[in-house]
Amino acid sequence: MTTQLKEAVNGNLTPQMQSVAETERIPIDKLCEAIAQGKIVIPVNNNRLEICKPVGIGEGLRTKVNANIGTSPQKSDTGRELSKLKVAIDAGADTMMDLSTGEDIDSTRKKILEVCNIPLGTVPIYQAMRETASLRDMDIGGFLDVLRRHAEDGVDFVTIHAGITRPALPLLENRKMGVVSRGGSFLIRWMREKNQENFLYEYFDEILDVVVEYDLCLSLGDGLRPGCIDDATDEAQLHELKILGDLAARARCAGVQVMIEGPGHVPIGQIRKNVELEKEFCQGAPFYVLGPLPTDIAAGYDHVAGAVGGALAAGAGADFLCYLTPREHIGLPDEQDVREGVVFARIAAHIGDIEKNIPGARERDQKMSEARVKRDWVKMGQYALDQQRYDELVKLEDRTDKCSMCGELCAVKVYQGEGG
Amino acid sequence: MTTQLKEAVNGNLTPQMQSVAETERIPIDKLCEAIAQGKIVIPVNNNRLEICKPVGIGEGLRTKVNANIGTSPQKSDTGRELSKLKVAIDAGADTMMDLSTGEDIDSTRKKILEVCNIPLGTVPIYQAMRETASLRDMDIGGFLDVLRRHAEDGVDFVTIHAGITRPALPLLENRKMGVVSRGGSFLIRWMREKNQENFLYEYFDEILDVVVEYDLCLSLGDGLRPGCIDDATDEAQLHELKILGDLAARARCAGVQVMIEGPGHVPIGQIRKNVELEKEFCQGAPFYVLGPLPTDIAAGYDHVAGAVGGALAAGAGADFLCYLTPREHIGLPDEQDVREGVVFARIAAHIGDIEKNIPGARERDQKMSEARVKRDWVKMGQYALDQQRYDELVKLEDRTDKCSMCGELCAVKVYQGEGG
Repeated sequence: MTTQLKEAVNGNLTPQMQSVAETERIPIDKLCEAIAQGKIVIPVNNNRLEICKPVGIGEGLRTKVNANIGTSPQKSDTGRELSKLKVAIDAGADTMMDLSTGEDIDSTRKKILEVCNIPLGTVPIYQAMRETASLRDMDIGGFLDVLRRHAEDGVDFVTIHAGITRPALPLLENRKMGVVSRGGSFLIRWMREKNQENFLYEYFDEILDVVVEYDLCLSLGDGLRPGCIDDATDEAQLHELKILGDLAARARCAGVQVMIEGPGHVPIGQIRKNVELEKEFCQGAPFYVLGPLPTDIAAGYDHVAGAVGGALAAGAGADFLCYLTPREHIGLPDEQDVREGVVFARIAAHIGDIEKNIPGARERDQKMSEARVKRDWVKMGQYALDQQRYDELVKLEDRTDKCSMCGELCAVKVYQGEGG
Repeated sequence: MTTQLKEAVNGNLTPQMQSVAETERIPIDKLCEAIAQGKIVIPVNNNRLEICKPVGIGEGLRTKVNANIGTSPQKSDTGRELSKLKVAIDAGADTMMDLSTGEDIDSTRKKILEVCNIPLGTVPIYQAMRETASLRDMDIGGFLDVLRRHAEDGVDFVTIHAGITRPALPLLENRKMGVVSRGGSFLIRWMREKNQENFLYEYFDEILDVVVEYDLCLSLGDGLRPGCIDDATDEAQLHELKILGDLAARARCAGVQVMIEGPGHVPIGQIRKNVELEKEFCQGAPFYVLGPLPTDIAAGYDHVAGAVGGALAAGAGADFLCYLTPREHIGLPDEQDVREGVVFARIAAHIGDIEKNIPGARERDQKMSEARVKRDWVKMGQYALDQQRYDELVKLEDRTDKCSMCGELCAVKVYQGEGG
């Protein structure tokens, strides 16, 4: 089997590349070259080529938004997660991740894949954790077994926390929040208890053997991402990032597409630096950020804080935003939370795209403003980022020249010599 | 009568300065000097010295948040606006503005002032507009009459669009959105129809005579603020900003405190520049921004886009954020919209304060993180920016060591050697 990356390196254009080039309005040879260089990925499992919408992620493309769903031991209801999946896709999510840790994870994943027509990612270590009797029993064998199941089922990208290594552990001592990545915390405890190197790092080639077979895209996880703004951009985080850069290069040599996951909690003044360091250390690999959150105290509104950080990150070159919901840090999201999470992240992505001069981004703002000058309330709805919300807020009978906000005191109207 | 500015210039410490210095945790001599230089204002009407909470706005102080309320010809219900006032203050607004244009504006304002114990601002030109039979009849006499009524009633700061002058009019020709400030659009139409200079500019000294008598703080309005990102930072906007700088200097000479209002729709890449230009042209006067909105297409979510722009602006040195509600551009906000608007702006302000190193800002994040490490759900609620929301989302029975999100799979717990 081949991979998108191998084809790109050989200059062969796949149907997925053709689709992405059209959607993104960029020349296909430029796209192909960027994929070959590892600057763009198209995460799609070889088993899902006919099913999954080709989505390009990386330099020069529209910033994409991922939405997480998944069962948990506390709430293991696959039907509910499928409902959230539908909400997220309807709200405009570009990709989904299934982070299930509840009952029968295999079955949940299969059901999600039956209906998910956009790229689906997973974090196989979660299932590996759940399937071992105790933490000490975890090993590369069990992990590869889970990974292969995910790949066979059709998962398009997987998070692998292979960048945490033993030299990083002492660097964590000065941290305020320690480790807040679930995969990261398990691996570190395993490494400490077993006094061994991270098996994901040690057996990275074996992981590549599995993923290359299905053309899974690797999302190299940041297990040491900062969990509070005071821990941002610290030695532990940068140590891991450098290793992720090395692993990315190895993955590409094996024909495997790679993204890099990023923080996390980061003050706004450090966000650009974080993007620049990722691009430098990881040879321009697509950067997939969680937030970033520029404050720790927005509990209940982390999707707002995340929109601030995400817009800045995207504007600085981040390629892929993982949504945050209002329940981040405090609980599990419901459907309404998922919807808001996706939309807020899309707003952030779009603000970033204006800054990055992504083809078509600013044009939509221009069309919205043209509709505003004409007080054309129908057209405004068409250009609104979330048309469903617009339809809820602007009643049909209000879509007239009579502005529902200011009436005859409308500044636009008065300026044009009417109203007043 | 004296003013806060005159007292500061003479090195006299007022009770208001003492209160602000304590609240903001800065040395009072430093505060007094900054007021004397025009870099900080304390907007409080001489008639409200005993009633109004002293709020400092400007360099080195916590970024403040303003919430707008007000009746309109479409919806003239003072009771409803009083209800929004309460919601805004409960949600943490630092100041309020009454933008009423409905029936009996005087009565509405008086009722608002009866209950508003934080600085209240108004835009007297709105009432002047409503009280003249036709636009052509507007003149400085009618305006000063309204202004004096506002001052006598106890209004603490007023928006005056005195910076729009005739040479700016040709600069508007190339704009996509024209003029979107209500006061600005009226004045420009008046200037065009009468072929005369802006009477607020021409009779600025007469305006100063009224406001200095009550120590009203001037908020010099940006009538030419961009209404779409393509119009941002254009010649018209900068022309007005320079004039605002001149007017600010004149006001200070008269002993009048001044803030400068700013945009508007601005792409993220131009926000810092906008703040720097304001500080340069206006001798460091406090900068009061509306948003800014870094995209035009977030209808229904302009409070999200505004949080992105507001956080960046505050981080770059803006001092005062005017909230946006989800109804911006599409209708009048209800109580829930007001609440969200205030909270989203406060998140933006806090993110900016972390960047500006405002005393106490980062400490709250640190305390939140300390509570997180200990999984102390009660303390987390105390440090959450919006404790009411936290209480709604995190039920009392969930405030235990058993994380309601991940249970025993809690990363923090696993990292500490528990759970798993």
